[in-house]
Amino acid sequence: MTNELRISETNLIALAEEFLSSNGLNIAQSRSLARTLVEAQRDGSFSHGLQRLPGTLTTMSHPQFNRDADPQPHDLSVAAVQIDAQFGFSCLAAERGIEALVEKAHDVGLAMLAVNNGFHSTALWPLVERISNRGLVALSMNPTHAWVAPAGGNRGLLGTNPIAFAWPRRDKPPAVFDFATSAASRADIAMHRETGTEVPEEWGLDNQGKPSRDPAKILAGAMLPFGGHKGSAIALMIELLAGPLIGAFTSRESQSFDQGADAAPCHGELFLAFSPGVFGGAGALDHAETLFSGFYEQGARLPGDRRYRIRENSAREGIRVSSPLLDRIQVLMGAAI
Amino acid sequence: MTNELRISETNLIALAEEFLSSNGLNIAQSRSLARTLVEAQRDGSFSHGLQRLPGTLTTMSHPQFNRDADPQPHDLSVAAVQIDAQFGFSCLAAERGIEALVEKAHDVGLAMLAVNNGFHSTALWPLVERISNRGLVALSMNPTHAWVAPAGGNRGLLGTNPIAFAWPRRDKPPAVFDFATSAASRADIAMHRETGTEVPEEWGLDNQGKPSRDPAKILAGAMLPFGGHKGSAIALMIELLAGPLIGAFTSRESQSFDQGADAAPCHGELFLAFSPGVFGGAGALDHAETLFSGFYEQGARLPGDRRYRIRENSAREGIRVSSPLLDRIQVLMGAAI
Repeated sequence: MTNELRISETNLIALAEEFLSSNGLNIAQSRSLARTLVEAQRDGSFSHGLQRLPGTLTTMSHPQFNRDADPQPHDLSVAAVQIDAQFGFSCLAAERGIEALVEKAHDVGLAMLAVNNGFHSTALWPLVERISNRGLVALSMNPTHAWVAPAGGNRGLLGTNPIAFAWPRRDKPPAVFDFATSAASRADIAMHRETGTEVPEEWGLDNQGKPSRDPAKILAGAMLPFGGHKGSAIALMIELLAGPLIGAFTSRESQSFDQGADAAPCHGELFLAFSPGVFGGAGALDHAETLFSGFYEQGARLPGDRRYRIRENSAREGIRVSSPLLDRIQVLMGAAI
Repeated sequence: MTNELRISETNLIALAEEFLSSNGLNIAQSRSLARTLVEAQRDGSFSHGLQRLPGTLTTMSHPQFNRDADPQPHDLSVAAVQIDAQFGFSCLAAERGIEALVEKAHDVGLAMLAVNNGFHSTALWPLVERISNRGLVALSMNPTHAWVAPAGGNRGLLGTNPIAFAWPRRDKPPAVFDFATSAASRADIAMHRETGTEVPEEWGLDNQGKPSRDPAKILAGAMLPFGGHKGSAIALMIELLAGPLIGAFTSRESQSFDQGADAAPCHGELFLAFSPGVFGGAGALDHAETLFSGFYEQGARLPGDRRYRIRENSAREGIRVSSPLLDRIQVLMGAAI
């Protein structure tokens, strides 16, 4: 494509970091967020990549946003740690909390990390992947905004509540999944609105609570969970574990907190880490490989495989970025100061 | 219905316990399994209720089955406990392990219990409900047999892998869900075979890996996960966490272990428990109630509500049991000795 460039990971992180710090975000947050967004871009998750940079300015303009956040982990027990993101971006808090989480999980077999009060602007999988790169099984989840009607309901209450999981593999990157528990993402629905196409059944309801295939009506009404009442139950579990359990906002509360600022959702995030070693399981990873072989034998892929292929390509040829997006980032450099 | 009786919980547990012990199962296992099956029957989960009693004879005839199992929990760390079901029914091991799990979770905020080598014959929700009755949030899951094709695959590899979750409520029984991660249960598909009706799309594949609506072909082919690739990812996570992580069988290994005995699947089971108290959250339960209110405000139900209504009815009028099933249980009393 003529309309895109290939840029090295190092240079792209430097660019994103400069964008953020030139807009008043402290260095630690700028570095952490830049890295996480570039990882998404590198692996082909463009929706969670550099395209999010311009939107960070809107998030930073939320009256409660803290450009100087300097979160520090707080030990709750040998197995639990909490970190207050201090109303900055959640990924710096997550990154710092993960260090304590990893240590605890190696010590006692499993551990949990609660990240509170963070504006969430990234995918979860770069973070669970980092935990798995330390030899641990990782699980993460968070509420968002109350866009999703529960099964049997007629209006938004639950978030799009993503869940991400990573399993470490020897000499290979972890098996990783990360998806919203809504049937589709808001971005997917908005894309259908732009192209004027109907969405599949079971994506959402209009503002009367009736099933609709009109993307505009769904965006003004309610999204639906994936997988019917089962997906709805998973979304509820996420809402509870990464909300009330850790003293964090529900999706409805997060939405109220936004007060029309249209910032990235601000809420809690839960991470769990498990050590295969605790069950005497040096063999656990080999054992899992026999399961993974069963996928490849029948031509199925493991979650994450596609991303890793794109990652290899990015390493060889540079990371794909659209030229108009780069132009926009340049224009907005320092715009918020 | 003329063809059913109403029997008190106490009497039904005594009957089930007598059935099991008269067939050579030791008292501790008989008591535990009887109680769990009767709880399912009481709450209207007939598929996991007394109807399973006759099948226990088939399970007990598996060459490895241990009628004298006397599982004892084994401490792995302050946050992890493991119990070997010794190739008896898993519910006694789970019950005993849960005592240690609850103590650890109250102490350090979260804990995990691995139950290994148990023949699994019950629903999971009676067990997570018991954990939640102790003030904890509970999560449980297990592999089964390799009946389910992963997304993008064409033959059985994953189990029907149930997941159960319970959240404690003040002055009310916990919010609880428990479901298979397959699109439908094998029992549902078999019912369609018996009535000669087609099953909905996306329930399964024939033995060539092609989508089919013929229940007989699916039972000879492969089931599909609920919710497409997202449900498939959840099923994989369950397979890994309650399999290789805890040194237990995958669904494929469990199926091989059966060696045609047609016993209940023998495998591991994972329980997690979280204490709302660890995050200073005496308010966590009240906070969750505001979320639950959002369900009722829009006419949606919480998972478990239907079961609790049936439970109240059972307490008032006795537990419904079909007369032919009772006759069959009487005939098979002591049959295996």
